[in-house]
Amino acid sequence: MLQVGIFGITGYAGYELARWLQRHPQATVAWAVSESNAGSSLAAVVPGPLDLPLLALEDADWGAVDVVFTALPHGVAARTALLAQSHGVRVIDLSADLRLDSAASYQQWYGAAHPDPALLSAPYGLPELNRAALVDAQLIANPGCYPTSVLLGLAPLIAMQAHLDTAPIIVNAASGVSGAGRSLKQNLHFVEANENFSPYNIGHTHRHVGEMEQELGKLAARPLTVIFAPHLLPVQRGILSTMYVQVRQELALADVQRAYGERYAAEPFVRVLPPGQLPTLAHVTYTNQCAIGLTMAQPGLLIVTAAIDNLVKGAAGQAIQNMNVMYGLPETLGLQ
Amino acid sequence: MLQVGIFGITGYAGYELARWLQRHPQATVAWAVSESNAGSSLAAVVPGPLDLPLLALEDADWGAVDVVFTALPHGVAARTALLAQSHGVRVIDLSADLRLDSAASYQQWYGAAHPDPALLSAPYGLPELNRAALVDAQLIANPGCYPTSVLLGLAPLIAMQAHLDTAPIIVNAASGVSGAGRSLKQNLHFVEANENFSPYNIGHTHRHVGEMEQELGKLAARPLTVIFAPHLLPVQRGILSTMYVQVRQELALADVQRAYGERYAAEPFVRVLPPGQLPTLAHVTYTNQCAIGLTMAQPGLLIVTAAIDNLVKGAAGQAIQNMNVMYGLPETLGLQ
Amino acid sequence: MLQVGIFGITGYAGYELARWLQRHPQATVAWAVSESNAGSSLAAVVPGPLDLPLLALEDADWGAVDVVFTALPHGVAARTALLAQSHGVRVIDLSADLRLDSAASYQQWYGAAHPDPALLSAPYGLPELNRAALVDAQLIANPGCYPTSVLLGLAPLIAMQAHLDTAPIIVNAASGVSGAGRSLKQNLHFVEANENFSPYNIGHTHRHVGEMEQELGKLAARPLTVIFAPHLLPVQRGILSTMYVQVRQELALADVQRAYGERYAAEPFVRVLPPGQLPTLAHVTYTNQCAIGLTMAQPGLLIVTAAIDNLVKGAAGQAIQNMNVMYGLPETLGLQ
Amino acid sequence: MLQVGIFGITGYAGYELARWLQRHPQATVAWAVSESNAGSSLAAVVPGPLDLPLLALEDADWGAVDVVFTALPHGVAARTALLAQSHGVRVIDLSADLRLDSAASYQQWYGAAHPDPALLSAPYGLPELNRAALVDAQLIANPGCYPTSVLLGLAPLIAMQAHLDTAPIIVNAASGVSGAGRSLKQNLHFVEANENFSPYNIGHTHRHVGEMEQELGKLAARPLTVIFAPHLLPVQRGILSTMYVQVRQELALADVQRAYGERYAAEPFVRVLPPGQLPTLAHVTYTNQCAIGLTMAQPGLLIVTAAIDNLVKGAAGQAIQNMNVMYGLPETLGLQ
Repeated sequence: MLQVGIFGITGYAGYELARWLQRHPQATVAWAVSESNAGSSLAAVVPGPLDLPLLALEDADWGAVDVVFTALPHGVAARTALLAQSHGVRVIDLSADLRLDSAASYQQWYGAAHPDPALLSAPYGLPELNRAALVDAQLIANPGCYPTSVLLGLAPLIAMQAHLDTAPIIVNAASGVSGAGRSLKQNLHFVEANENFSPYNIGHTHRHVGEMEQELGKLAARPLTVIFAPHLLPVQRGILSTMYVQVRQELALADVQRAYGERYAAEPFVRVLPPGQLPTLAHVTYTNQCAIGLTMAQPGLLIVTAAIDNLVKGAAGQAIQNMNVMYGLPETLGLQ
Repeated sequence: MLQVGIFGITGYAGYELARWLQRHPQATVAWAVSESNAGSSLAAVVPGPLDLPLLALEDADWGAVDVVFTALPHGVAARTALLAQSHGVRVIDLSADLRLDSAASYQQWYGAAHPDPALLSAPYGLPELNRAALVDAQLIANPGCYPTSVLLGLAPLIAMQAHLDTAPIIVNAASGVSGAGRSLKQNLHFVEANENFSPYNIGHTHRHVGEMEQELGKLAARPLTVIFAPHLLPVQRGILSTMYVQVRQELALADVQRAYGERYAAEPFVRVLPPGQLPTLAHVTYTNQCAIGLTMAQPGLLIVTAAIDNLVKGAAGQAIQNMNVMYGLPETLGLQ
Repeated sequence: MLQVGIFGITGYAGYELARWLQRHPQATVAWAVSESNAGSSLAAVVPGPLDLPLLALEDADWGAVDVVFTALPHGVAARTALLAQSHGVRVIDLSADLRLDSAASYQQWYGAAHPDPALLSAPYGLPELNRAALVDAQLIANPGCYPTSVLLGLAPLIAMQAHLDTAPIIVNAASGVSGAGRSLKQNLHFVEANENFSPYNIGHTHRHVGEMEQELGKLAARPLTVIFAPHLLPVQRGILSTMYVQVRQELALADVQRAYGERYAAEPFVRVLPPGQLPTLAHVTYTNQCAIGLTMAQPGLLIVTAAIDNLVKGAAGQAIQNMNVMYGLPETLGLQ
Repeated sequence: MLQVGIFGITGYAGYELARWLQRHPQATVAWAVSESNAGSSLAAVVPGPLDLPLLALEDADWGAVDVVFTALPHGVAARTALLAQSHGVRVIDLSADLRLDSAASYQQWYGAAHPDPALLSAPYGLPELNRAALVDAQLIANPGCYPTSVLLGLAPLIAMQAHLDTAPIIVNAASGVSGAGRSLKQNLHFVEANENFSPYNIGHTHRHVGEMEQELGKLAARPLTVIFAPHLLPVQRGILSTMYVQVRQELALADVQRAYGERYAAEPFVRVLPPGQLPTLAHVTYTNQCAIGLTMAQPGLLIVTAAIDNLVKGAAGQAIQNMNVMYGLPETLGLQ
């Protein structure tokens, strides 16, 4: 039985982690740290089904855990990961602190010096694309929610070398409000988010662009440009990315469909929909699945749609999947 | 053309006021004061259809307005009303500061000494029940949202003297989230309020209980007890009150139905639904209407359901209706 | 490994059953029958995470299953239960066909003669109240969603014999739209149900009143009257019942709180909230939990609030709990 | 006072028309025809604030009206427009029957022969682009909801001749559920649409593509290709179109911003947001406004975002605006 510690359990991703870990037959939550609510109980802080004492950092017994999940703001997460490392405890980090490959990139996208660039050697925890590097890893960088949908949605196409560089890849995406976190902001007030739909940080500015371009560039073995337009969607959870890719004129949809089918045939968490079907949030919410649909809009222009639950495949579920890979457990354990 | 000033325009009720006043053929917004956003424009503060400069209090030209609406927190509202009075400007106050009849009652329900008990002589601005007192008034206390639904829903029954005192009147109510205001609170975060339904302050504790009992008591000419259970409802706007009243065993629904029909026959904003129909929020949202349904659950137990839009008949629309009455204008002017 | 058959898998309760059974370590879905979609696959009919072939009734291999769940309209369910019995297969019925104790009561509340009154001897499947009768049962009547919340919410109070009969028990309840089923009706169109809140069938008319009064009457050992006012709530799932009970004047809230705590101390799926806390849908959705809050509105008037997920504790989860009890498995198996 | 007849008042667009016409100082609804509900009253068919008798077609007094609005399915609308013409009554048609320029185009996009191609000479009722043709028109083709957002969003850019033809214009759009109409469909059931987000008819297939390409082509004076990806959004109303346009590399955002500002300076219903601001549904719902935002994603790629209320500027409000233009009334009359 793996003993697990959670940092940031009062946030949406941390809470979701705890919910899924309840079901995991070979892992259990040993303790949860919440600096801002230490001494309280989870049920007193978050009205929901779970309860658990919330510890201060200094009361965390590092000897009692095998691995910790850090569901913390960036910056804080890196410092916590370093602390865990110093105690010989493995880390799966749900923040952005371990995802980028260089301190320069971190500086560019997060506007701050990286707390400890050595952490950036952590493997990128998207098992479908990077499984081998995750086995026995001490540290794993859990991917961002938007990048997960984009990378799973585009990887087989990039591998086909069918896309063109005459235009950037356009990713029009929508995310449920839990993706914006639990902190109070005016635009997340129910009355402002409900019955609304809001583009934000569109163009080449959202922080996840750096992560997407980095990982897509690796797959393509050359730099790619992503134009990214996220929208805030009035639902609890779920991301749908609608991606427009210029491809070779002669590329046939049937060939794309076949390539995706083969690429993901053995993947338990990726589902390529049959021709003519399109993924919706209802295909994936409350699961660790990614659903993908393929449409040839006109010769030379492919639309890939990909849906995930931002809190599951986009955060907590993927983190548990990474833990399973890290420890050589069946990858779907506790994730059904 | 009446010149109008608005205090608290960045709140939901103040903003709604400004929206409706745009349509009013005999009133126009001369200025709007926002202490916290003075110097900014409304569009920069609230993403929505309206724009207007936001003034500091000291820049408000009292000579330019006939009447002000104070859509402010209680306490602040009373001080602003006093200031308006000192400039000879009429006031329609949307806060609770003018609603209760005595300083003692204010102390009991709001937990603070009233800033100036002389203000408590302002007439209660529910035109359907108190029209005569509002004509030419200098000050009007605009009713609370929940009390508006309850008082309109029960007034004809109380007048029939058909209710019994063997049990309190039970008011089970649900309100859209705009009723809780625009300030940031964890339970109003989209993810916490959406897909949720939450009872709060149930029993005999919510501040509107004092207002309901006061006004119902006047109608009954004896004290009445109200047990009140409000619930937070995941919609933008709307209140539905489901009220359980013990009545004389022999009271026939048809007689109740007739009494309600007659009582409200001439009222443009109250609609008594035919037997067997029940009001829903869809009957009233975005209108100044109150819709009422009547059900005899069993001999001796009447259920009255009443729906309003908390921002219109429960706040801004009623305030404009009060302004119309105050100035002798047609009561429905600008409210269709 | 229990082999399970599902009838009605394309409905909300049937689909939810299949989702939870995926996680059950000792049960697996052998087949699913859908008369209206036989020959198709579940994924082609319901856009969601699941897939499964949909069989015609005549293709169901009764020899391959130990137990079937019938999530069918009433009337059809009884006929299917009879058929299962004739094949020696156990039945957990999610319809109303097995819940009432007499054919007369069924006629009264469902307006039709019961297809086979012998089925009415099936035990009522609310394990917290009726566990012993369910062990090794061949047939179980899974309770209605509203009655589950009401019975769990009131059982300890009834057992205290603290309630009075001078007034009926008033149950004001709200249910998410999945409770109304997947069939197309105008009031369930998104635009009509969203941003709305609608009372329906209020008084003493909703079909679940008969079931509530029957089971409460057994607990009280005398007839009780329930006045029931359900409301349609614009959320996917969840029921909140706010119940008003006249009790002895001298009854202290602390005593009620203690009695509830003791009554449910050993129940894994019932949670009595501490004094001052009230249950919300967020406490229970996507779980098999019932959360209960207690408030003394005034001496002699207790308000009990109880929340469940109508599709889990109110339908599919409770059905699996019943299966666990029926077969002597740990009651929480597969339900976390 | 213009006397108005409405066909299709029980649909969402027809009902919205009736709501706005209540406020119009120089128009009044003389009668409303509803073939499927003739003899009933509007309040009995649609639970909402309005009431009105519903007539059969043969009871419509053509002599009593100046103009009719046809908010009917395509096909039926054309036949009704012909009938109105034969009585010398003007028509503003909210269906697609008058929008396309040729019977061939109608056949291509609507899959049926046009009932009477002579009707296709009706002017396209987007006043901001085609005002002169609407004055004194006998027939007006009210635009589609999606096309309204796209045409207002792109017209100034097309006029700048700054866009390139190396790639199609990509329109990623989301619409509230009222855009899909009031008829019952499984995907419009509350439980299926709520908490969901669904792409549909993406590529070059949605019927509005023909209308967009036709009108954009006129503005550009050459054919343009639109790739269109609509998504069903879980809100009552509102359309947001996010449009990706390849433009000349050297085009500066400031120049685009200036051109849009000048183009719409005198338009009461179009609002170009300042640089850095993006439109949301909250900017426009329940108004006849279109709000537009401009973003240069990278040199050569402009993102235009445009928001409208599909039921107002996308249907009923625009129809009233067209009526105002048709009769030489102030264009904003009744639309505030």
